[in-house]
Amino acid sequence: MDFQTIRHDVNDGILTITLNRPEHLNAFTVTMAEELEHSFRAVNDDDSVRAVIVTGAGRAFCAGMDLSREGNVFGLDEQRTPGLSDMADLDDPAIAAVRDTGGRCTLAIHDCRKPVIAALNGAAVGIGATMTLAMDRRLMSTSARIGLVFGRIGIVPEACSTWYLPRLVGPSAALDLVLRADILDAETALGVGLVDEIHPGEDLLTRAVSVADAWTRDRSPVAVALSRQMVRRNATLTHPDQAHRIDSLAMFWTSIGDGKEGVAAFLEKRKPDFHGCASEMPQFYNDWIADQTSASAPAHPK
Amino acid sequence: MDFQTIRHDVNDGILTITLNRPEHLNAFTVTMAEELEHSFRAVNDDDSVRAVIVTGAGRAFCAGMDLSREGNVFGLDEQRTPGLSDMADLDDPAIAAVRDTGGRCTLAIHDCRKPVIAALNGAAVGIGATMTLAMDRRLMSTSARIGLVFGRIGIVPEACSTWYLPRLVGPSAALDLVLRADILDAETALGVGLVDEIHPGEDLLTRAVSVADAWTRDRSPVAVALSRQMVRRNATLTHPDQAHRIDSLAMFWTSIGDGKEGVAAFLEKRKPDFHGCASEMPQFYNDWIADQTSASAPAHPK
Amino acid sequence: MDFQTIRHDVNDGILTITLNRPEHLNAFTVTMAEELEHSFRAVNDDDSVRAVIVTGAGRAFCAGMDLSREGNVFGLDEQRTPGLSDMADLDDPAIAAVRDTGGRCTLAIHDCRKPVIAALNGAAVGIGATMTLAMDRRLMSTSARIGLVFGRIGIVPEACSTWYLPRLVGPSAALDLVLRADILDAETALGVGLVDEIHPGEDLLTRAVSVADAWTRDRSPVAVALSRQMVRRNATLTHPDQAHRIDSLAMFWTSIGDGKEGVAAFLEKRKPDFHGCASEMPQFYNDWIADQTSASAPAHPK
Repeated sequence: MDFQTIRHDVNDGILTITLNRPEHLNAFTVTMAEELEHSFRAVNDDDSVRAVIVTGAGRAFCAGMDLSREGNVFGLDEQRTPGLSDMADLDDPAIAAVRDTGGRCTLAIHDCRKPVIAALNGAAVGIGATMTLAMDRRLMSTSARIGLVFGRIGIVPEACSTWYLPRLVGPSAALDLVLRADILDAETALGVGLVDEIHPGEDLLTRAVSVADAWTRDRSPVAVALSRQMVRRNATLTHPDQAHRIDSLAMFWTSIGDGKEGVAAFLEKRKPDFHGCASEMPQFYNDWIADQTSASAPAHPK
Repeated sequence: MDFQTIRHDVNDGILTITLNRPEHLNAFTVTMAEELEHSFRAVNDDDSVRAVIVTGAGRAFCAGMDLSREGNVFGLDEQRTPGLSDMADLDDPAIAAVRDTGGRCTLAIHDCRKPVIAALNGAAVGIGATMTLAMDRRLMSTSARIGLVFGRIGIVPEACSTWYLPRLVGPSAALDLVLRADILDAETALGVGLVDEIHPGEDLLTRAVSVADAWTRDRSPVAVALSRQMVRRNATLTHPDQAHRIDSLAMFWTSIGDGKEGVAAFLEKRKPDFHGCASEMPQFYNDWIADQTSASAPAHPK
Repeated sequence: MDFQTIRHDVNDGILTITLNRPEHLNAFTVTMAEELEHSFRAVNDDDSVRAVIVTGAGRAFCAGMDLSREGNVFGLDEQRTPGLSDMADLDDPAIAAVRDTGGRCTLAIHDCRKPVIAALNGAAVGIGATMTLAMDRRLMSTSARIGLVFGRIGIVPEACSTWYLPRLVGPSAALDLVLRADILDAETALGVGLVDEIHPGEDLLTRAVSVADAWTRDRSPVAVALSRQMVRRNATLTHPDQAHRIDSLAMFWTSIGDGKEGVAAFLEKRKPDFHGCASEMPQFYNDWIADQTSASAPAHPK
């Protein structure tokens, strides 16, 4: 795929995706949404990549939706969809087709088989902030700023951010961040839990690579993919017995796969040599992910 | 409505509800429950109010259920419901009608379209503590005390408090607070996350007004109402794709409503002038809230 | 029951379960899983016990699965279940029978009517760490170490740990702990929220008894059992109105039971004398627990 708004660099198993519209502070467009969604889905089948880092070109991470392109936020506009504005009939296919572009990206990040690390090199505003909430860890430059500014312009947070944010910072801080709609400096963002680490800008990518290595080097890509989804999905289930079902299948699958080598290497006090591939996940994994990612059958409202 | 147990004061768009039985330390009664539930439902249709503050008259916030009126806790008593005590048949209409009065209040707070801020001026015990967990932020006087004391008298926490508490303080601290059933001073309550801010008593209401202003002044009431429910409801869903559906509708609705003015004001570097009304929420909002507030169709047990 | 791998000691209403294979650092076996599961289910009917403490004999708490018994992790092995390894048909009874042994223990802890306190006297690794996440509080010796080491040997965390862990430490720290798979010292474990308290080893059991007493001495065993499950189960429901239903029944049940004595003792300023028994929970409690513990009807995947 030939990208217009992002850049891909692969080095030693780590894919760095750079938001690449520096002349527009990497403002988000429908094309960028499509290129990001594609990237996070395609990487699942690329066994040469073990982890993903997302950063921005130039001085910003992402300055939010490109407001110069109003009307294209959902890939549709009022003119082309007469009657849409009253939203009277939620079964209307035109309304059912309304899809937040930011959410299409974060859902692809959610489903990803590789850990995704945000390296916030500069301003992360609006979708520039919310897209990172679906990533696995947020590293921020000490000179960067971040803000969920939606409330200041009469709109709402998106990209599934209200699904992630209260889990990350607690419900009180989450509502406070959303309603205040302030832009925070790095220390404040760290204090409230909106980001996980702050570092001087010049160290940021090195530290992101450190995290990626600690998580994935000499590890089973199958166990990493399973563990990532278990932490994401099992915690949201109503009962631990539902997690137990997945645990049992995942533990059994890995214990007859890379776990054999893992235990052998441990007993022989040597580095393991895993052969499992994240491109070839077991059938139960695919069923599990598909079952929980059926955006075509929304729960609320009917 | 003519209130017997509470007082309403509206000033500059902020409704202050004062628990008003100071001679009884504002102890909770069935009448108070009804008046509070009514207040939090009626305010949804009052576009002159943008936020709600709840505080207590006199030296207490609320000293808990009025134990001098035993038997009225649920608006029913054993004498009037023969056979109820064995609870053998959960389909029995008398049992199905059992409704915790505290929960009727907190469910109304949960559904509210306006942010609700607790100003704990004095002792908040039992329902006086649990009712505030459903509010959006808890400010506490440095001289006040708070306690989930139910365990000391052989009963259980109510008012949906076990739904809120672990989200606010984590599951370990939640159980510890519930089982110890201690009364905490303000510093301890802040430390564990039971309240969000502590202030000298004389500053408490001013600080509550500050929060209300930061959240709602010059903001779209529609976006505030949507955002408040998105933070509450999206985070509890099993999958982010369910949040994605609501995000898409809410972002689309606001982008063709107050968002137009919001973006215009932002680009013109002026204060926005929003015209949306929380009394006129879109149909999908009403369906969404109704779908998730069907207490008449309880999930557990059947 | 005659135990081979654990020891039971009851003192003043507190059952201490000691993992008792000190010559193997209390490594976990299928027999230990069965004895633990049995213990946590049987204690529900033993009204002489009000709380449970779990600790280890010798210098370790539990060094993880006994790897010398590979193949028995699930109580089955490949040789005995031909065709199982391709896991093509999830409806196959052999696959449906796959049950993680650690999860069988933690589900029994989850359902327990008595609070369960972990006293981590020494190394807690693998299942030795994850089994404690289902307990109500984790006290750790300052000299002990704890680690979710699964990722190092190519397998995944189990025992429903990914259901508990993000609730205890947040989703970012949870994934970091799982993917790094490091062994942490006590200070680090406390800092990240993996344990709740750290104490010098010689004080550990005394402190565990203190917690058990603060939670259960002079308390209604029925209210304790109800409260414990309400904190565990209500918080996981999508809507507070579902919690409201349980609250109403639990509050009504206790208010006509031990609550009468509790209120009387409170008004008479004396210690209460409760007569409720956790062995005789109301029918709605049993229905509620059974409804949420139907591991035989897993939600994911079908």
